[in-house]
Parts: sequence; structure tokens; C-alpha cells
Amino acid sequence: MAVTSSSMMLLRNLPTVGRIAQSVRANSRIFSTGEMIRVLPRIASPRSISSTRAAHNEEAAAKAASDTGAPTIFDKIIAKEIPSDIVYEDENVLAFRDINPQAPVHVLVIPKLRDGLTTLGKAEPRHIEVLGQLLHASKIVAEKEGIVDGFRVVINNGAEGCQSVYHLHLHVLGGRQMKWPPG
Amino acid sequence: MAVTSSSMMLLRNLPTVGRIAQSVRANSRIFSTGEMIRVLPRIASPRSISSTRAAHNEEAAAKAASDTGAPTIFDKIIAKEIPSDIVYEDENVLAFRDINPQAPVHVLVIPKLRDGLTTLGKAEPRHIEVLGQLLHASKIVAEKEGIVDGFRVVINNGAEGCQSVYHLHLHVLGGRQMKWPPG
Repeated sequence: MAVTSSSMMLLRNLPTVGRIAQSVRANSRIFSTGEMIRVLPRIASPRSISSTRAAHNEEAAAKAASDTGAPTIFDKIIAKEIPSDIVYEDENVLAFRDINPQAPVHVLVIPKLRDGLTTLGKAEPRHIEVLGQLLHASKIVAEKEGIVDGFRVVINNGAEGCQSVYHLHLHVLGGRQMKWPPG
Repeated sequence: MAVTSSSMMLLRNLPTVGRIAQSVRANSRIFSTGEMIRVLPRIASPRSISSTRAAHNEEAAAKAASDTGAPTIFDKIIAKEIPSDIVYEDENVLAFRDINPQAPVHVLVIPKLRDGLTTLGKAEPRHIEVLGQLLHASKIVAEKEGIVDGFRVVINNGAEGCQSVYHLHLHVLGGRQMKWPPG
């Protein structure tokens, strides 16, 4: 099953979009490669096989993606055009649950204004304040989720870093013992 | 072999301390639990066994450590009392190589002034600027190391996050394909 931007536009015009999107979120793995939104069926398989497949999908998605500066799926999430499970929001930052969680708590923290921050590697001195706000928001998320005494923050940069969406985002993970090395 | 703070004080008074410390760094795994600095021999074993042992050691070290607010080994590194392989330094931030690297590039980025930031979980709004400086410095480190197009930043918080030194530090990892999940 592949849903392109144009068919997503069509979906958004249906009154049942909320229900459909919820169903898609519950059963699928959504990721963005540039402007195209693809929806892959989630594999119903033992945890180890599922984990391997998820890992492979994430690396494959990262390799397929590129830093074109085009809008991403996160713009639609910020605009509330695509529903997300929001954990925290303020003027500068949005935090919502990852739809393919790698731990009992797995939340993404993003700047509402990308301002050139497709990756952390694009950070300039003018971004220092928003970068600090993102880390501070990660702490607030950890508090809200009851994991402030034990969690991990991860930022992926580029294909080798496993980044598949080119809008800077921090992963906040917890609720289980995190392992070493970190991937 | 166990080296306590008092014996480290003694070591620091020897003119050969630099050479000894270099030797220790080359052959050992140093980590801090509160005030005690322990030096464990590095295991010469196949990579897979070594990785498992490293992972176990890191989790064990994290479980043994606690957030007492006491000085850590990083204070001695900042004061240049213990040598480190410095990659980047400015007024606020110090970046140096992890002595137990988990990737071809593995650098720690720390605030020179801890100011209560034993963990990210202790972050307050007044820390936003230094938090941003740490992330911006991570980008500078990635550039200097030639991995700015592919790297990962990791912050461990508390025992479940695998944190073993209670002075906020960012891990910058790269030079290989990073995996998913991130530990």
C-alpha cells in the first residue's frame, strides 16, 4: 500500500479522515521521504524479528531520504493536518509520540519553526536558543512521562546517523533499561 | 586494581603522572562512581565478546553510580589534572574523546561549569543557553571529525539511561552506520 501526497490530500477531505488516520497510525509504519508519504503495513511477527525488520526499515528509510530542504511530514503534524499524540507543546516546541516506538516511552521533540535545521549538522550560532529549548523540553517530556530519573535523548544526523525525516527532532526514550552501545 | 581519590592525589604529585595516565588510558576502562575512581583492565577478546562486556560494564557502572552532586572525574579533566584527548574547547564547553569508544568517532561534550546539571533531568530554564551551546558544539565536533553528514548525539540520564558520570555529557558518535533502536 502506498499513499502519495495527492491521495493524502483526498483523504483529508473525507469526514472520516480522523478515524482512518487513527487506524493507519495503529496498524502501520509511516515515514516520509521528501514529499512522498508512504504507509507500510506493520509486520505481525515475534518481537525479535519485528525489531530486526524495524531496524532494517529505519536504516533503509534513512538511506532513501535526503536533505533537500523540502517540507516533511512534521510540517503537517505541526499544522495539525495529520493527527499526532501530543505530549507537550509550547510556543517554540512540539512533542508527540513516535508511531514506531523503540521503548515504552518514545516521544519526538521538534522545533515548530525549522529555520534551516533540517539536521543538527546545519546548526548555526543563531540556533543556540532553540537548541536549548529543545533539550529543556525533553526534560519536561521525561517528567510528564514519569521517566525523568531514567531516560535517553537521541539525535540522528544524516543517513549514517539513521535520520529519515529532515526536520531536526530529538528522540526521548525510556521506561526500560537502555542498552550500550546506543545503536 | 583500585585507585582511590587519595592515591590519585599521590599520583598527581609524581612527575611521571602524564606518562602513567597515558598508559592507564591506553589499557584500561576508567569510570567514576561518586568520589571513587576505579580502573578496570581492558579485556583482550573478540569484538563481540568485548562489546557484550563493554555493554555490561556500562550498565553495571550506571547502576553503581548515583547522583550525589559530588565532583566527578570530569572536574579533573576540565582542570587538566587528568589528561584527555581534547577535540574542541571554548569558554563554556569542553569536548574530548571517550576512552571506551563505541564508534570510530566517539567524543564527549560537557559544560565546563556543571551548575547543577548532574543530569539533563535537572535542567531549568536558566540552563537553556548552555544546553544550546552543548548541541551547537556537538555540530562543531562533527565537522572537525569529518562526520557532519552522518552522526548521532546521545544523552544518557540516570541508571536506566545508562549514565555513569553525574556531570551532564553529550556523546557524539559516528564514522560507521549507526543502528536502530539506539540501545
